[in-house]
Amino acid sequence: MPAYNKILIAVDSSDEAIGVLKQAAEIIEMYKAEAEVLHVAQSPTMAYGPWGEYVPLLHEDQIQERLEERLNERMVDAGLAHIPSKVVFGLPVDTVVRKANEGNVDLIIVGSHGRHGIRLLLGSTANGILHHAGCDVLAVRIRETIDG
Amino acid sequence: MPAYNKILIAVDSSDEAIGVLKQAAEIIEMYKAEAEVLHVAQSPTMAYGPWGEYVPLLHEDQIQERLEERLNERMVDAGLAHIPSKVVFGLPVDTVVRKANEGNVDLIIVGSHGRHGIRLLLGSTANGILHHAGCDVLAVRIRETIDG
Repeated sequence: MPAYNKILIAVDSSDEAIGVLKQAAEIIEMYKAEAEVLHVAQSPTMAYGPWGEYVPLLHEDQIQERLEERLNERMVDAGLAHIPSKVVFGLPVDTVVRKANEGNVDLIIVGSHGRHGIRLLLGSTANGILHHAGCDVLAVRIRETIDG
Repeated sequence: MPAYNKILIAVDSSDEAIGVLKQAAEIIEMYKAEAEVLHVAQSPTMAYGPWGEYVPLLHEDQIQERLEERLNERMVDAGLAHIPSKVVFGLPVDTVVRKANEGNVDLIIVGSHGRHGIRLLLGSTANGILHHAGCDVLAVRIRETIDG
């Protein structure tokens, strides 16, 4: 039995996601694994309405559509057009870990910038997933495009 | 070109190391990768001698010999007898990351217990390696043998 049968790939909306997807594509192919790509996006920026209620500045479905378009383009670039993908709003660590548990995923692939990366948020996401996941986690090191 | 050509497997002396080694064996085989197993051990317990100097309670080479024997047994059990392995003394994160950098390693495999594991030290080692490594890191989730 191969080591990994069901793989969840977690990406953000950064340009570096393509690197994670390409690495994931090779791994999925190698293991002949079932796979899904998940982009957990921050909820749209909210503002207070006249009665103190929350009002989204952009509709969630508008943003979701744009993010899905971008993700789909990247999936094609990475040779992953045949793999299901989804954009959801929520807290990245919680959402990825819950999804992995529910789907009996045995490997989560996530991008990581490390402590010295310019994108600390993504670093902390990889870290949080590593802490909370019940399965193996592959952190794909993202090369910074900005030197220094 | 396969995703990973040179793999470093970092283990501790716990019984769960065998699980990490078995998972690593499958991955090495799949990638036909060059690999090495590294056990970074804590320096032997030290005591103060009569003139305030440090005195090791056991000689480093005695401990190293026992750790090497145990590691070798586990390597055989995991089907990794053909892979080079080494026991060194030092700080786990620093030693593993330095070794990976020097050897142009492209994947580090390390065991991880997660935040809720009973062995927080190993959890923090995986975490530190994830932060500091310049290459991809696969954290193999170790199943606790103690329930609850």
